[in-house]
Amino acid sequence: MNQRAPHPSFRPAQGAGEGLDWAGVDRLDYKSEGEAPFRGISRRVLFDQPELQGQLRYFEIEPGGYSTLERHEHAHAVVILHGAGRALVGRAVRPVAVPDLVWIAPWSWHQFRAAADRPLGFLCLVNQERDRPQLPTPAERAELAREPALAAFFAGN
Amino acid sequence: MNQRAPHPSFRPAQGAGEGLDWAGVDRLDYKSEGEAPFRGISRRVLFDQPELQGQLRYFEIEPGGYSTLERHEHAHAVVILHGAGRALVGRAVRPVAVPDLVWIAPWSWHQFRAAADRPLGFLCLVNQERDRPQLPTPAERAELAREPALAAFFAGN
Repeated sequence: MNQRAPHPSFRPAQGAGEGLDWAGVDRLDYKSEGEAPFRGISRRVLFDQPELQGQLRYFEIEPGGYSTLERHEHAHAVVILHGAGRALVGRAVRPVAVPDLVWIAPWSWHQFRAAADRPLGFLCLVNQERDRPQLPTPAERAELAREPALAAFFAGN
Repeated sequence: MNQRAPHPSFRPAQGAGEGLDWAGVDRLDYKSEGEAPFRGISRRVLFDQPELQGQLRYFEIEPGGYSTLERHEHAHAVVILHGAGRALVGRAVRPVAVPDLVWIAPWSWHQFRAAADRPLGFLCLVNQERDRPQLPTPAERAELAREPALAAFFAGN
């Protein structure tokens, strides 16, 4: 997981686009295509150093896009850094905006959605060593969608 | 180091003051008075959970204030979240603003200063287990101040 090259002391933000960007930080695919459902989301690894036991990433979701609905043993500590949208954690859906905090405890179902007309960008802290995400089975997803607020969230409403 | 109480999933930002604030997150002293030189700086612990090996804090410096000049074995991964100022890392001084990234490698001298007319707020990721900071000896500080850019920074110019 670790990049062993020295890390520059300063990485200024750059660009005048809709979202956030930094000098020397690559915009990466969120996941491999077809691995899981998602739409319009990119990933940047901001800090991934051998001296740190945590890894800090920045995810940005285009207007109308969403991250994968998933859960795993490892936790996420999230800080909203750009734009606005909504987050599902466990069985709760809440609006989120800069600089709200979101805590995703182990094994909580979670998904982020950008607003229809605004992107959603957030920092996400994880442990360097972590397990792979699990997707819901059709039965698990149907069970979640029995709650009207979650059904509306899944439908993008 | 860890707080063992359950962490709420959502902590919305709150307040309409000059700086950032979150529901349920205490504004703490930066350090004990007299322990080290600093001015006009507060500390908030955003995420400090047993499930995470990293701890995420938010520091905010009032206009004209500064953090302690120090170094230590542990590293800092910093994201500027509010306002603007300057940072000293090693022997480099750079302006910083939202959402710049600053990497403070082990044993690098470092200090943050808010602008004269603006606060400076930043996220700082550290390992949960870490050593105590060291202050410069008078000789070390004098040696650093031999560089004009660092002397001006120390003088607040």
